[in-house]
Amino acid sequence: MKHGGNIFEFAKSCGCSEKEVIDFSSNINPRTPEYSFKDVNISPYAEPTYEVLYEKLASVYKLESSQIAMYNGASSAIFALFEMLKPNISYLYAPLYGEYERAASLHSKEIKLCNRFEDIYDTPPKKSLVVFVNPSTPDGRYYDLKKLFRIWKQQKCSVLIDESFLPFSSKKSIRKLISKNKNLYVVQSLSKIYGCAGIRIGALFSHEKNIKALKKRQVAWGLSSLDVSFMLWALSDETHLKKSSRWMDKRKTQLEKILHDSRLFSKIYDSSANFILAKLSTLDAQTFQQKLMPHRILIRDCTSFDFLDSSYVRFALKDKHSHKKLKKALNALT
Amino acid sequence: MKHGGNIFEFAKSCGCSEKEVIDFSSNINPRTPEYSFKDVNISPYAEPTYEVLYEKLASVYKLESSQIAMYNGASSAIFALFEMLKPNISYLYAPLYGEYERAASLHSKEIKLCNRFEDIYDTPPKKSLVVFVNPSTPDGRYYDLKKLFRIWKQQKCSVLIDESFLPFSSKKSIRKLISKNKNLYVVQSLSKIYGCAGIRIGALFSHEKNIKALKKRQVAWGLSSLDVSFMLWALSDETHLKKSSRWMDKRKTQLEKILHDSRLFSKIYDSSANFILAKLSTLDAQTFQQKLMPHRILIRDCTSFDFLDSSYVRFALKDKHSHKKLKKALNALT
Repeated sequence: MKHGGNIFEFAKSCGCSEKEVIDFSSNINPRTPEYSFKDVNISPYAEPTYEVLYEKLASVYKLESSQIAMYNGASSAIFALFEMLKPNISYLYAPLYGEYERAASLHSKEIKLCNRFEDIYDTPPKKSLVVFVNPSTPDGRYYDLKKLFRIWKQQKCSVLIDESFLPFSSKKSIRKLISKNKNLYVVQSLSKIYGCAGIRIGALFSHEKNIKALKKRQVAWGLSSLDVSFMLWALSDETHLKKSSRWMDKRKTQLEKILHDSRLFSKIYDSSANFILAKLSTLDAQTFQQKLMPHRILIRDCTSFDFLDSSYVRFALKDKHSHKKLKKALNALT
Repeated sequence: MKHGGNIFEFAKSCGCSEKEVIDFSSNINPRTPEYSFKDVNISPYAEPTYEVLYEKLASVYKLESSQIAMYNGASSAIFALFEMLKPNISYLYAPLYGEYERAASLHSKEIKLCNRFEDIYDTPPKKSLVVFVNPSTPDGRYYDLKKLFRIWKQQKCSVLIDESFLPFSSKKSIRKLISKNKNLYVVQSLSKIYGCAGIRIGALFSHEKNIKALKKRQVAWGLSSLDVSFMLWALSDETHLKKSSRWMDKRKTQLEKILHDSRLFSKIYDSSANFILAKLSTLDAQTFQQKLMPHRILIRDCTSFDFLDSSYVRFALKDKHSHKKLKKALNALT
């Protein structure tokens, strides 16, 4: 099951509405900027280059707008990049977001997976497209990529770094490297940090030559006027990132403690993102999920991730109230 | 310049805001269903199959939802189809919507244009992908496709019919043929008839085998939750289509009379769509547009359309007030 998508099936099984489910499976910031859509005019065509949004994103991310291509969601950005590059070999550092394997299987001749828990410094094939999610998912680990970059450069790889979870941490982005490195692409979901999975806007950052080539292949009017309007507003909220990050730090400490105190887990992973991966000591993920059903708590069973097994589950950080409910549910299990 | 997109540049040249421009260039229904977005929750991921919207569209269009693939706009649907079929030869009945040539140039080896004003019954190459917009643009002519279908079948062509302007007419759709014809695809913009170019939802109708193949290539969460919510509402408004069509009929008679009475045109085309193509007698389109600038009236210069020259201009049907302004402006020219 895909991230966030299974709440509807879960609610059905619980016999409740999806609004009653406490969703720890979807790694979205629970803090969404408030916005009224009443002044958005949906009748006319939008300004076709979305110039105002591009300039706003460029200023927030400290880039030139010529270094940005926006799509209706980060997944669209990923698919568009694979479609353009058509790499012979896609070299994916796994486990990672499932859409990468789909995009690669549509547009590459071959997919190779690298188990980043064990073989991270293996050499990828020459001229392959390497994909690295940083902080990674489902574990949330942030990697210093220096050594990897040396290997990738030596192998003449194209490099796609997915920084969708980076805004939740205080770590530095590598997007400043795009002006000097023509083989580097950085993808950024805006839905995660701005808590708006229903808004479909994601961005690719790269050297302006690459962006020009991507834009030549872009569909006219790819973004919803409503989404553009919301995102402009969200990006203008200068306190959102700081507040979210402070809030997340508190919640992370709280959730880690809840998981630790439950004694259900043999390992709780250090995370630089807005979720925590944990390894169950005795239960398997499916049984664990079933036991949480009466509490209407949905977690992310990580069995489907490469190189993980059915003992792994992921929890997104949620508000205090939800954490309390989780604590109660976990206590009832032990 | 693309349809509808140049209002921003035009407003700049006029030294006014785009809201002050009377836009005859954009072929959008001026009647947009009213909708409040205040109850749409943009935080969570949408139900990933958009089942409710698919079922609503299926019921309005009298199809099965397994015969529908939705995209963020008809242009996205077109690009996705070309990307999947990768036709050796794209055979485009021109003039037509400019994005077809872009999609074809990205994904076919060769593009052939058929001048439908003169050579409509020429035989397309075997197994090519033929594209026919019906009613056509920029002239609005509706074609009976029977004879063409015989030719296409004999040539084993894949067939894409664009019916984006059909809901403005009382003509019958050919989409009922998709269940028996595996080479047929029908594309439908929903922005035109529902007057919502800012909402990015368009549909492809085809045999369910083709739809399955298209969906395998689709990006996860391709539609904005806000757009989905609006479109559900719009499709539920059962009077919209009838009211729009009655309103359009009146406006068309009115606009035809205004154009005729102005004596500026040597030909005014019969249209089954929500716009009228006219051939200027003496002026060229650019001069004509310049003369309308003081009135802040923007028309569609059709010079860029294949097989048309700089004597052609297109007018979208607008409200009474806008027609009156146009009449006044045209009178001032003669």
